[in-house]
Amino acid sequence: MEIKEIINKIDFSKIKWKDIGFVPAVVQDYKDGAILMVAFMNKESLELTLKNKETYFYSRSRNELWHKGHKSGEVQKVKELYYDCDNDTILVKVEQVGGVACHTGKRSCFFNKVI
Amino acid sequence: MEIKEIINKIDFSKIKWKDIGFVPAVVQDYKDGAILMVAFMNKESLELTLKNKETYFYSRSRNELWHKGHKSGEVQKVKELYYDCDNDTILVKVEQVGGVACHTGKRSCFFNKVI
Repeated sequence: MEIKEIINKIDFSKIKWKDIGFVPAVVQDYKDGAILMVAFMNKESLELTLKNKETYFYSRSRNELWHKGHKSGEVQKVKELYYDCDNDTILVKVEQVGGVACHTGKRSCFFNKVI
Repeated sequence: MEIKEIINKIDFSKIKWKDIGFVPAVVQDYKDGAILMVAFMNKESLELTLKNKETYFYSRSRNELWHKGHKSGEVQKVKELYYDCDNDTILVKVEQVGGVACHTGKRSCFFNKVI
């Protein structure tokens, strides 16, 4: 499938912020299945992710595209990419270079255990 | 931690729809780590999830709380629950009764493989 075709399949309209439509993207370790983080992608970041096989997101707080790891070199290499039955969520299975996905220095952003 | 304390930690303000704040909730199989689905929780659905140890979500299309599997009996039993470093995403590890999480009859909602 062409990248444009894939992007046209995704429904970016349900969540909007400053007129930018985006969808949640779950980032999972391709080897052991750990959930590393969840961020948001808009059309442009999905296009770059598919083109460059590294993850790009849209940061609402900074109002800009964000290439994960572009400064540190700790990028996420895309191994698999899926969208869901409603066409409004992305799942990316990655190899996390350096092993650490969270800005706190922890491997995963989900370190606050409630149950 | 008390349920109210946990709910007060979560930032429901970033995504709003009809003045209801909600956060993405990733549902993962607690045994093999498969991502079953992603849906949204508001305060009330998180409270019910923590209280009853089964997943509740907020459906924007139907504009109502939704107890996953309440009709079919195919509920999701909560084994672990986490929130992320930004306090705005939930990860629930569940036992999916009946094994099927997606309304299409597939185990996972993420059956559309792009890469």
